[in-house]
Amino acid sequence: MRNVKCARCVKCGREYEAVPRLTNCACGGILDLVYDYAYIKTVLTKEKLKERPYDMWRYRELLPVEPDTELPPLRVGWSPLYEAERLAKQLGVRRLWIKDDGLNPTASLKDRASAMAVAKAREAGAEVIACSSTGNAASSLAGNAAAAGLKTYIFVPSRAPKGKVAQLMSFGATVISVQGSYEDTFELSKQAIERWGWYNRNAAINPYLSEGKKTVGLEIMEQLGWQVPDYIAISVGDGCTIAGLWKGLKDLYAIGFLDRLPKLIAVQAAGCCPINRAVEENAPWRPMEENTLADSIAVGVPRNPDKAIAAIRESQGLTVEVTDKEIMAAQKLLGTSCGVFGEPAGVTGTAGLKKLCAQGKIPADATVVSVVTGNGLKDVANAIRSCGEPISVPSDMERLLEAFAAREIPLN
Amino acid sequence: MRNVKCARCVKCGREYEAVPRLTNCACGGILDLVYDYAYIKTVLTKEKLKERPYDMWRYRELLPVEPDTELPPLRVGWSPLYEAERLAKQLGVRRLWIKDDGLNPTASLKDRASAMAVAKAREAGAEVIACSSTGNAASSLAGNAAAAGLKTYIFVPSRAPKGKVAQLMSFGATVISVQGSYEDTFELSKQAIERWGWYNRNAAINPYLSEGKKTVGLEIMEQLGWQVPDYIAISVGDGCTIAGLWKGLKDLYAIGFLDRLPKLIAVQAAGCCPINRAVEENAPWRPMEENTLADSIAVGVPRNPDKAIAAIRESQGLTVEVTDKEIMAAQKLLGTSCGVFGEPAGVTGTAGLKKLCAQGKIPADATVVSVVTGNGLKDVANAIRSCGEPISVPSDMERLLEAFAAREIPLN
Repeated sequence: MRNVKCARCVKCGREYEAVPRLTNCACGGILDLVYDYAYIKTVLTKEKLKERPYDMWRYRELLPVEPDTELPPLRVGWSPLYEAERLAKQLGVRRLWIKDDGLNPTASLKDRASAMAVAKAREAGAEVIACSSTGNAASSLAGNAAAAGLKTYIFVPSRAPKGKVAQLMSFGATVISVQGSYEDTFELSKQAIERWGWYNRNAAINPYLSEGKKTVGLEIMEQLGWQVPDYIAISVGDGCTIAGLWKGLKDLYAIGFLDRLPKLIAVQAAGCCPINRAVEENAPWRPMEENTLADSIAVGVPRNPDKAIAAIRESQGLTVEVTDKEIMAAQKLLGTSCGVFGEPAGVTGTAGLKKLCAQGKIPADATVVSVVTGNGLKDVANAIRSCGEPISVPSDMERLLEAFAAREIPLN
Repeated sequence: MRNVKCARCVKCGREYEAVPRLTNCACGGILDLVYDYAYIKTVLTKEKLKERPYDMWRYRELLPVEPDTELPPLRVGWSPLYEAERLAKQLGVRRLWIKDDGLNPTASLKDRASAMAVAKAREAGAEVIACSSTGNAASSLAGNAAAAGLKTYIFVPSRAPKGKVAQLMSFGATVISVQGSYEDTFELSKQAIERWGWYNRNAAINPYLSEGKKTVGLEIMEQLGWQVPDYIAISVGDGCTIAGLWKGLKDLYAIGFLDRLPKLIAVQAAGCCPINRAVEENAPWRPMEENTLADSIAVGVPRNPDKAIAAIRESQGLTVEVTDKEIMAAQKLLGTSCGVFGEPAGVTGTAGLKKLCAQGKIPADATVVSVVTGNGLKDVANAIRSCGEPISVPSDMERLLEAFAAREIPLN
C-alpha cells in the first residue's frame, strides 16, 4: 500500500508493517494506521472524486487497501445527509444536518467496518471471518461476508435477542450461542479464532475497522462541499466509531481538503458513560454497568477507549450524557421533523445535541451535523414502548369526530 | 406539465386533465398518465442523466410533476443493483441481478409512490395526506410526509401489528385504529378524506403513485447500461407495483432508450393469487382469501388489477405461484448468496424465479433481474420462525469441537 507508511501503537508508539492480519501491539495498545499524506496529496483531488461511484470506496487513496484488492459487493456508504431546517430552528442552531447511516445495507454504520474487514480478509487469503457480538457488528459482518462469498462464524451470548440471531442465520452465518456471559463468549471466540486461523473482525484488536468507519466523516465533508461545520454530534459506545470519524476528519485536514476541524460532541447514555466520564474527570477510564436501553452503545468496558478519548480531547469537543427518556424523545423528534427512524443508540447523538442546546452550550449561530448510526427497524420493541397508543374508534364518523375533539386535534 | 398530455381511463378511454388531485374515472376505472414522448425525446438524453443526483427525481422528464414543484426531502430511489454470480449459477441462468429496494428510506419500494404523493400534495396546496393501510404504504407515507413538513392521518385496522403502528407514530402520523375489518377501515378513511379534503394517497384511486413506482424500472435499465434483460421478476400484491415497473420500461422504449422490452415474471403467493389466476385462466379476476405470511402482498381483492394484468399480458410474461415455504427458502437463499435480507413479500419474486428455473421454464442463457421490494427487518418474526436454531454450547473448546463434529461443519 503506497499510501500507508505503517501502523503505530497509540500507547507506546511502536511501529509495525501494515500487514492484513494486524492485531494489537505487543504492549496491548491498539494500533493506528499512519498515512503518507504528502503522497496522497499528489494523487487525490476534490475534482477526481466527482467521477467516482458513490460508496465508501471512492476515498480509496485514504483507505488501507491494496490497489488490486477485490472490493466487497454490498454498496456501503454514501448515506444521505439531510439538512434539517425545522429541527435547527427548534433546537436553536443556525444550520443542522442529519446523516442517516441507518440506510447502509444491513442498516447501520457498522457496515463500513465490516466491508473493510471483508476486503482485508481477502488480502489475507482468508475464507472465514469471525467475531463475537450480538449486534450490528455481527449482522453487518454476516451480510457483507455472505455477499463476498466468505464464511462467517459468529459467537453470541445465549441472551442474544432472537431477531438478531435470525438475521445472522438468514445471512448463512454459523452462529454459536455461548451459554454464559459476554466475556465467556469472547473467550471461546478468541480460542476458536486462534485455533483455526480465521480472520478476526473485532474492533478491539483489528486496527483496519476504524479506517472503514472513518468514511462517514469523509462523506459528511464532501456532502457539505468541504465547508466545515462547527460541531459533529455522535453516540459513543466502545469508542471505535467516534475515533474513526475523527481520523477521517484529520485525514482531510492533513491533505488540505479542510481549513479547520470541527468540535466533536460525544454523547453517551447516562447509565453507561465510561468514556465521557474519563474525559470530564480528566482521569483514566473505569468500567461501568450497562444501564441503558440503547443496547448498541451499552458498553461498560470499552475496548477502544484510548483513541476515542484522544479524539474528544484533540477536537476540544463536548461530552454529554442522556437518559433513556431523552433518547426515546430524540427518536420521536427525528421521526416527526426529519422522517428519519433511528434505533435508540442511533439517535443518542441527536439527544445529546438537544440537551446541550437547551443548556445554552451551543451558540445560536452554530452549524452542526448529527449522525444517526443505526435504523429504528433494528429495535422496534423500544419504539413500541415509547410511542403511545393510536386513536381507537369503530368505523363511524361521529365517533371519529368525538375522538378528534377529545384530543383537540386540529382539522382543516 | 409540458411532458404530460392527459390522464386516460384504462377501462373506457375517457381523458382528463392531469390535475394534482386526480382520482378514478367516472366509470370507476383507474387512470393512466399519458406522456408526450415526442417532446420528451427532445429534452432527455442518456448523457444528461449522468450529471444528475442519484435519486428517483433524476428522471424528471418522465415524471408527472410541475417544473417548479418542490421535491420531497428523503432520498428515495437509486437502490443498489447487485450482480449475483453465484446465485445465477445455482439457479441455472446466464446472468442475474438483484435490485435491493429495501434500502429506501423507510425500507421498501413504496417510498417511490409516497414521495410522488408528497410532491403532488404540495402541488395541490394540501397540508395533510391520508391513507388507509397497515403496511409499507403507511410507513413510507408517514416518513416522506414528515420530512416534508406535511401532516398525515393514517387509518389502520385494529389488527395492525404494533411494530408498524409504532413506526408510524414515531414519524408523527395521527394513527386511527379502526375496530373492524380492512373494509371498515377503508370506508372510514374515505369519509374522512372527503370531509376534510385531505390529499388521498391510495394506489387504488391516485394514478400518480404508479408513476413514482415506475422509477424502479427506469433505474434498473440505467444501471444495466440500457442493456435489456430477458426477464424481470417481481412479487405482485394489488398489482400497482408491477404495473408501474412495466410503465417505466415502456416509457424508455417509447423515447428510444431501449431497443426491446423484457418479459415480466409475476410472482404471487399460492395462497393469494387472484391476478395471476386471471392471467392464467384468461378470465376476469375473482377475489381470493389471503392465505400467506407474505403480508405485503396478501391482497385478495386487488384494487388495481387491470393495469397489472395488462402489463403481464403485454410483456408476454410468465406467472408463477409460490408457497410460504418456498418464500422463506428464498429469503435464506438471498441472504446467504447475496447478503440481501428481504421481507417475505420482498423475496417472493426470487422465489418464483427459482421455481421457474427448476421447472425448466427459463432458458439457461437468459439474463434476469429480480426485484426485492422490502427489507427483512420489517418482519423479523417470520425470519425467526424459519431460520432454525444456532449451535448452543458452553464456553468450552472441547464442547465446541464436539458440536462442530456432530453437525459435520467443515473447518479449515
